[in-house]
Amino acid sequence: MIVVMERGATSAQVEDVVARIKLLGLAAHLSQGEERTIVGVVGSPLPPTLDGELEIHAGVEQVVRVTKKFKLAGWDFHPRKTTITVRGVEIGGDAVTIIAGPCSVESEEQTVSTARAVKAAGATMLRGGAYKPRTSPYEFRGLGRRGLEILVLAREETGLPIITEVMTPADIEEVGEFADVFQIGARNAQNYLLLEEVAKFGKPVMLKRGLSMQTEEWLLAAEYVMAQGNPEVILCERGVRTFEAATRNTLDVSSVPVVQKLSHLPVFVDPSHAAGKRDYVPALSLAGIAAGADGLMIEVHPSPDHARSDGAQSLTFAQFAELMPRIGAVAAAVGRSVPAPIAV
Amino acid sequence: MIVVMERGATSAQVEDVVARIKLLGLAAHLSQGEERTIVGVVGSPLPPTLDGELEIHAGVEQVVRVTKKFKLAGWDFHPRKTTITVRGVEIGGDAVTIIAGPCSVESEEQTVSTARAVKAAGATMLRGGAYKPRTSPYEFRGLGRRGLEILVLAREETGLPIITEVMTPADIEEVGEFADVFQIGARNAQNYLLLEEVAKFGKPVMLKRGLSMQTEEWLLAAEYVMAQGNPEVILCERGVRTFEAATRNTLDVSSVPVVQKLSHLPVFVDPSHAAGKRDYVPALSLAGIAAGADGLMIEVHPSPDHARSDGAQSLTFAQFAELMPRIGAVAAAVGRSVPAPIAV
Amino acid sequence: MIVVMERGATSAQVEDVVARIKLLGLAAHLSQGEERTIVGVVGSPLPPTLDGELEIHAGVEQVVRVTKKFKLAGWDFHPRKTTITVRGVEIGGDAVTIIAGPCSVESEEQTVSTARAVKAAGATMLRGGAYKPRTSPYEFRGLGRRGLEILVLAREETGLPIITEVMTPADIEEVGEFADVFQIGARNAQNYLLLEEVAKFGKPVMLKRGLSMQTEEWLLAAEYVMAQGNPEVILCERGVRTFEAATRNTLDVSSVPVVQKLSHLPVFVDPSHAAGKRDYVPALSLAGIAAGADGLMIEVHPSPDHARSDGAQSLTFAQFAELMPRIGAVAAAVGRSVPAPIAV
Amino acid sequence: MIVVMERGATSAQVEDVVARIKLLGLAAHLSQGEERTIVGVVGSPLPPTLDGELEIHAGVEQVVRVTKKFKLAGWDFHPRKTTITVRGVEIGGDAVTIIAGPCSVESEEQTVSTARAVKAAGATMLRGGAYKPRTSPYEFRGLGRRGLEILVLAREETGLPIITEVMTPADIEEVGEFADVFQIGARNAQNYLLLEEVAKFGKPVMLKRGLSMQTEEWLLAAEYVMAQGNPEVILCERGVRTFEAATRNTLDVSSVPVVQKLSHLPVFVDPSHAAGKRDYVPALSLAGIAAGADGLMIEVHPSPDHARSDGAQSLTFAQFAELMPRIGAVAAAVGRSVPAPIAV
Repeated sequence: MIVVMERGATSAQVEDVVARIKLLGLAAHLSQGEERTIVGVVGSPLPPTLDGELEIHAGVEQVVRVTKKFKLAGWDFHPRKTTITVRGVEIGGDAVTIIAGPCSVESEEQTVSTARAVKAAGATMLRGGAYKPRTSPYEFRGLGRRGLEILVLAREETGLPIITEVMTPADIEEVGEFADVFQIGARNAQNYLLLEEVAKFGKPVMLKRGLSMQTEEWLLAAEYVMAQGNPEVILCERGVRTFEAATRNTLDVSSVPVVQKLSHLPVFVDPSHAAGKRDYVPALSLAGIAAGADGLMIEVHPSPDHARSDGAQSLTFAQFAELMPRIGAVAAAVGRSVPAPIAV
Repeated sequence: MIVVMERGATSAQVEDVVARIKLLGLAAHLSQGEERTIVGVVGSPLPPTLDGELEIHAGVEQVVRVTKKFKLAGWDFHPRKTTITVRGVEIGGDAVTIIAGPCSVESEEQTVSTARAVKAAGATMLRGGAYKPRTSPYEFRGLGRRGLEILVLAREETGLPIITEVMTPADIEEVGEFADVFQIGARNAQNYLLLEEVAKFGKPVMLKRGLSMQTEEWLLAAEYVMAQGNPEVILCERGVRTFEAATRNTLDVSSVPVVQKLSHLPVFVDPSHAAGKRDYVPALSLAGIAAGADGLMIEVHPSPDHARSDGAQSLTFAQFAELMPRIGAVAAAVGRSVPAPIAV
Repeated sequence: MIVVMERGATSAQVEDVVARIKLLGLAAHLSQGEERTIVGVVGSPLPPTLDGELEIHAGVEQVVRVTKKFKLAGWDFHPRKTTITVRGVEIGGDAVTIIAGPCSVESEEQTVSTARAVKAAGATMLRGGAYKPRTSPYEFRGLGRRGLEILVLAREETGLPIITEVMTPADIEEVGEFADVFQIGARNAQNYLLLEEVAKFGKPVMLKRGLSMQTEEWLLAAEYVMAQGNPEVILCERGVRTFEAATRNTLDVSSVPVVQKLSHLPVFVDPSHAAGKRDYVPALSLAGIAAGADGLMIEVHPSPDHARSDGAQSLTFAQFAELMPRIGAVAAAVGRSVPAPIAV
Repeated sequence: MIVVMERGATSAQVEDVVARIKLLGLAAHLSQGEERTIVGVVGSPLPPTLDGELEIHAGVEQVVRVTKKFKLAGWDFHPRKTTITVRGVEIGGDAVTIIAGPCSVESEEQTVSTARAVKAAGATMLRGGAYKPRTSPYEFRGLGRRGLEILVLAREETGLPIITEVMTPADIEEVGEFADVFQIGARNAQNYLLLEEVAKFGKPVMLKRGLSMQTEEWLLAAEYVMAQGNPEVILCERGVRTFEAATRNTLDVSSVPVVQKLSHLPVFVDPSHAAGKRDYVPALSLAGIAAGADGLMIEVHPSPDHARSDGAQSLTFAQFAELMPRIGAVAAAVGRSVPAPIAV
């Protein structure tokens, strides 16, 4: 971190800044320029709010953070790309991973039929919500434990590993018993206590991007998981909030190369929540893969018009089956493959 | 809710929409216009996602929600403004309530001295964080239970009721034992399970606005608390995210009259988190009161430059003492009073 | 447009609304429901602000616009996709069009060498700024008329048609004399007088999306051009403003399918201004094509580190040459081609 | 400006950066720290895009701008607050200035009656649009020259100076002949050619904030006017775009103290365009004054329900008359006055 003093800063002001830095157990390195004094702050880790704290000292013009706030998620401490293997499915490798399934688990019939259909089309992992976050207390909240049991049935039928959301620390044990990958939803992306508790369970964690999160904040959220000793984090871009009204969220497809420049963690795209309307899901799926995403998470439902949640953005079996070869073609065009079908 | 069919919609398409509505246990009312058919949906409560579900039916042009998604938070079900009394301090009444105190409880000396100073200046409630949400896992996270005990000491010394944040369901019992008002932070504003669990404890809940929440979503979050039978919710505007870089967040001062038009709940302004820099706290405090806020929540610290969190936005004792009469003057100008000092 | 009256609205209130509608020369159609009266407004075109005007009448609950605000840009009045041919280069057809060139025309050598390089790599149109909008009055503003002359030299050398920005009505004659396509920049996207004057010149117009424009507003801006009798409008997505700091703007790749659903106009993607950093330009280029864009506009410079503007986001000749076959591969994967090289 | 080199940057990389700086006629000052080399850039003015240009050099970690991009608008070059006197009305002084009038000039009767009403209530300047920017080409665009003549009639009747919008360079002569203050609308806030041409006319210019402008960009726009030798710029906050749907824009009331910290220019608040609904105009007016604004610009119409534009946000004569003493009370509470009535 670098503290740039004002042109007319007094020695007393400089000393005050240096004293503050030392108070925090950090070292200060003075550099006397022609016009200004610059104070370098050395030490690790630097308190994340140190910028703001130093900025308000008298005589300080500006404070500049040179190092990133995150460590474990960055390339410096982990120079190889992270790959995660879940029941034989590799995430973050050469092949792109397509996760598909219903928004909510509604019934055994609905979930198992969807699992079979998406597997037949080439998906290698099954999604489905048993505990659902809803913006209103009067909405369907999922089947809970019964939903988890149905997911397991679908896994037994198809061999597809399952990913499902966990919303609160009290549910971690139960969800962890069934799920192969925990999903943390966008609204919990900065629920740090949940992140830490989930991390401790020891299974991979998919971390959706928060609704108005910067990529750096997203990587800091991943850091919460990794700091607990769990390196298996998958990031998932699902759109950010903008003024655009035509889509539910605005897919920030740039976040794929941005994350890949800053971090070794795999990054996925969720075209369904970004679009909010199924008409746009194919274009966003292809864009995500073209931008370099390691995978997609797509909502599919046997009868979207009768879904209990998010039907508007779910594809039918036929639409998903039609989309998969197009995804494969774009993946091939950017030098990626799609994985071989899973055998039960 | 009103479903506007396309100009050329067929009877079969209209019937399909009607069937879908009835499937959900709601009534449909047809209205045949010159150019279009309109289907009214009657029933309560309407599923919050019903708009989206109907919008994708063939032949549907647009779906319009006429009723609000929230009920208990709105004027229809509660035509009188809510007032909440906490240890003799009335919130939402004629007088504006000034809550002040440090961002984090750091020590007994720091917290008790702050409590005394803000009380002397006219504050009637004490804030202080024992459990702190931080964007990085490497930051100071508060003193925990010891912090709560210190807050109680400060209350015993000064008579000021205390408000403190609770971050996870597991802490509710402990925090509730000490606090007079629970605070739900911006990052947990849509952590619905937390909202419901906190609600059940039965103490008043201050609900900070989420970083990119619309006012309607904010009132839906309040609805989560109220739907558990706890009517004592205080809303607190603390700025939303925009492109402006000069302030930490952008105080949406309009949310004060907007909330007051839609809801009977008291609404506060937190100028400290909105500004992020103490220089702007006085102007935002006065603007909040002028706009009609029921109170303010202001960060004050004995030595902001040495605060363990958010020092940049904390006022000194002297600055707070200087601000209070200005708040009183603006309150008087808009027909509000400031409460009489609290006696121990 | 549909006016939904409040549950308890009086006949006098309904009549007042009807009177207001008739005052504007429009017809009102009453529909008496069980719970509410609904007033349909018939007439064309409806004043764009009519919603707001009716919404404030006593007794009105909500006003819903059913028809889009734009006409000429929509499919209803033009059921075939627009294609535009510029000196033999077809835009909006089966092949995707790659426009490339420097941000600013700096010298004959710089521009002609770039034109040759991008043509050799497969670009079929040349971009270059002669008049530059800058956020500060102290920046390089382009070579003006000399810049236009240099672009013409480059066209003569390579056969590539040229597109260049016009910033003010006073420059239209001069720019129009040289350019094949006018570009309207993001900051002028709602400068309606400029749009109308440019339209009248009769050459194709590329309309960049404004920094925080909704797609509907963008199409309304296109409508300004088309309403002057000029149907040759090309839309160009160049990123919108969000909180993300890692990129200059956030490319809204969803706008490609959204525009294509609403309008018959060709839509391009400008990955350079969206990214702001050349590292991200390839991923965004591929994502744009995968999402279905009709073309790309990419900044290329012989020596980006020495560019007089936007060097950070410009590709080198080698980088552009390396990118083009990857664009071709993705285009092929989504069923598009790249055009045959241009012969001089 | 400070260039922070990476930890392992080579001397060749440092020299390359230094060479680039010198190429631009600026001086470079090296500072060798323990861990990194820092290069200071000295010279004035620094090119506004220099940060980006240096950031992409090999070996550069980060570039930090220490000085502001604007000069004339800042305190350094003008240590006293700017006051502007228009036909005897002082702007930026002790008294707050209330500008009121219709959105559009619709008729002599409408405008003159409004001028009389707002003057009687205490306004000291008249607003009214003769040339109107509209988001659709099918909307009412104002009476043009006839509108300007009507404004002059109203000025003759009441003595109120007039402010009106100019939208394009071609209209400057005509508008300048009649108006006392030019208004630049939000959509033209970065139309730099217009700003420069308006500046040259020599009359005061009110510069509305753009829809998604940062305060620094806004001050850079003011710099365009001032760099032409016209120091009489008034800034006007009118709300920025956010996700909030309850108001037309989100009034960034913090921009008042932020601008006042960065600049000596007067800053106004336009509560009408920010709110979009007249119900919220009083609260925003009072908040603006409490935050320290030098004045307000409020839309008033004899019969808002029949206004040809923006009726929804216009106050009636009675509402404005009721609001003015409340504004006076808040102004007094924050140590400002309202001016004495104007005599004809």
